[in-house]
Amino acid sequence: MSSTVIRNVRPLGREAVDVVLTQGKISSLLPVNSADPALATLIDGQGQLLLPALVESHCHLDKTLWATPWRPNSAGPTRNHRISNEQRLLKDFKVPMAERAGPLIEHCIAQGSLYYRSHLDVQTVWGLQHVKDMLALREKYKHLIDIQLVAFPQGGLLTVPGTVELMEQAMDLGVDVVGGIDPAGIDLDPIRHLEKIFSVATRYQSGIDIHLHDLGEMGRWEIERIADMTDDQGMQGQVMISHAYALGAFPPADLHALADRLAELQISIMTCAPPHVTVPPVTMLRSRGVNVCSGSDGIRDAWSPMGNGDMLERAMLMALRFNWSKDEDLAAAFDVVTQGGAKALHISDYGLDVGCAANLMLIPGENLPDVVLNRSPKRTVISRGKVVAKDGVFMAG
Amino acid sequence: MSSTVIRNVRPLGREAVDVVLTQGKISSLLPVNSADPALATLIDGQGQLLLPALVESHCHLDKTLWATPWRPNSAGPTRNHRISNEQRLLKDFKVPMAERAGPLIEHCIAQGSLYYRSHLDVQTVWGLQHVKDMLALREKYKHLIDIQLVAFPQGGLLTVPGTVELMEQAMDLGVDVVGGIDPAGIDLDPIRHLEKIFSVATRYQSGIDIHLHDLGEMGRWEIERIADMTDDQGMQGQVMISHAYALGAFPPADLHALADRLAELQISIMTCAPPHVTVPPVTMLRSRGVNVCSGSDGIRDAWSPMGNGDMLERAMLMALRFNWSKDEDLAAAFDVVTQGGAKALHISDYGLDVGCAANLMLIPGENLPDVVLNRSPKRTVISRGKVVAKDGVFMAG
Repeated sequence: MSSTVIRNVRPLGREAVDVVLTQGKISSLLPVNSADPALATLIDGQGQLLLPALVESHCHLDKTLWATPWRPNSAGPTRNHRISNEQRLLKDFKVPMAERAGPLIEHCIAQGSLYYRSHLDVQTVWGLQHVKDMLALREKYKHLIDIQLVAFPQGGLLTVPGTVELMEQAMDLGVDVVGGIDPAGIDLDPIRHLEKIFSVATRYQSGIDIHLHDLGEMGRWEIERIADMTDDQGMQGQVMISHAYALGAFPPADLHALADRLAELQISIMTCAPPHVTVPPVTMLRSRGVNVCSGSDGIRDAWSPMGNGDMLERAMLMALRFNWSKDEDLAAAFDVVTQGGAKALHISDYGLDVGCAANLMLIPGENLPDVVLNRSPKRTVISRGKVVAKDGVFMAG
Repeated sequence: MSSTVIRNVRPLGREAVDVVLTQGKISSLLPVNSADPALATLIDGQGQLLLPALVESHCHLDKTLWATPWRPNSAGPTRNHRISNEQRLLKDFKVPMAERAGPLIEHCIAQGSLYYRSHLDVQTVWGLQHVKDMLALREKYKHLIDIQLVAFPQGGLLTVPGTVELMEQAMDLGVDVVGGIDPAGIDLDPIRHLEKIFSVATRYQSGIDIHLHDLGEMGRWEIERIADMTDDQGMQGQVMISHAYALGAFPPADLHALADRLAELQISIMTCAPPHVTVPPVTMLRSRGVNVCSGSDGIRDAWSPMGNGDMLERAMLMALRFNWSKDEDLAAAFDVVTQGGAKALHISDYGLDVGCAANLMLIPGENLPDVVLNRSPKRTVISRGKVVAKDGVFMAG
């Protein structure tokens, strides 16, 4: 069986080693320059850092306008304006999803992301079109990346009749996770909304991932209710709350009891750490044992032309958001976009140990904090043991 | 006289033209593909955008640890801790400033910045060492870039006896601008502090640039006093307030009268748009006629390992800070790091018109908003009419 040797790399910045990859797995870690490359493909690691592939825990691949001509943003000021603006724009959009999300996926692979959770817009406006197109794309790229899909009721679940049925059809077609959105702010009936998504998830034995932008006391109250239902339904470890802006509205010490409950119920918190709104206190949450992951959210879509899918840049933005400058904090930012995502997405063979999937990145740098701040574009991305991108160029087409 | 023709470039994203550069100036703008390259050096613009060089309006080149081995940040939590930590670290630092700030300057040039205002740390701890070292560096790079230097009393002006005299000696040696720092928060006597720096500036007929981190009501009150003294001393157009966090603590509409006063007195506001603190409301300020510029602040120094000197990234971070997504807002972010800086720094021959300095950047992109969000590393930087950097590599050594 042919294998690959990566010679002279530093796992997470530690002492240099040789890494042997066999059948898409890390098969051994050897003293540097000791691996025999006779029967193997040799990659000269040149003392670069070896990292596990980045985890994109929250994106909206189906919505992207990537690889299409620039389109001035035409959305109104509120979340509801943005939803209706996107409905107008994406319904019958002339460039098919495969020609937008496909190039974006290849771009994100070249940045080093090989694991994704993408929310898939399920609305009566376009029925199951996004679902079908994205399932086909997932199939196309399954030899390179793992994509978890969330059935996401962007336009409202209860407020738009027919959406629950569409969500169930999406799950029948192979979507993995049941989504929710602002049970109060968008769907206007928090308890019925939560009851419904927990009931669908229980029936499909799937996880739940809820977009929660609701602010302040409202959002905190909803998080408490999500915790109640997670507990009642025995769904420990199956629930993610995305954004959770409300957790940034209180002194962190006031949230210790709630954080302890989230930790106990293994509810993950996803934050993009945006600067214009309150955001969850990542340090406190992690210190109480709450798992935190991150994502790009929208990337060049009808909501905003922002975003580039680079999860190392996201780690830097998180550090900037909290004014982190210490090595341990910068390493925590890196942990959020790697191990935090892997835990939230239940990736069992993730990491740099023997037996882990050979989904890796080589990048120049002195150490992890340096890598997070430098974000070198000179990345070598390895998927299933093979180089699939180099220096920002996708090569596995 | 030999000249240079840049063929087929789009000034700020507009219609393609040929641009002729002669004696370090833009000598003509011609219809695309009409310039005769017979006696000229030809640069094929390939339809890229042509931009004026970026303006770095607030940095601390003298403090950087750039190009030295990674050093975990060792500062305590407050501004005063960071000041004393830096004093310990930089005093007798074994790598001379030229070997840190020099490589950083070359890196920043390669990102497209050709105009700088750098605050120069004047403290009794190291006397005039920073001043002398930086004046030598300015001399070394004067054929490529313009650097304005500010005599900056980082450790306090009145609270540290001897600092005023050092500031005056710095001005005697050729430093351009009188600096100040938190007249209340650091120097503990706001009126005496302001009187002193206005008096030194008046004597040297120089401008003033005040670091103002003081928050909320305190900071706003200080900004009002700075306006008073600017008016009293007839220093319209000569004063910059850097950071001005306090302006972010109030509803923008409550600051209209103060903004109008800043506009009338031509006091510029410099903001790095950091996400962890209140920041000046850029859109409101600009709409009332206040000039706003931006800068990197510290770049890999004892304060923080953050920063990379890329002013296009700074424009993106500003857009992100305010959740801007409209073309006009993204163009405003670009304006802040170009024309806003040029106005604040009184660069008279700045821009893309005939007669302007040939200090330019070519960059791929569809239009200005795209350039701000994409921040392509494939930049061609032209200083005084000659290519000095390409694709991130400084070539004028």
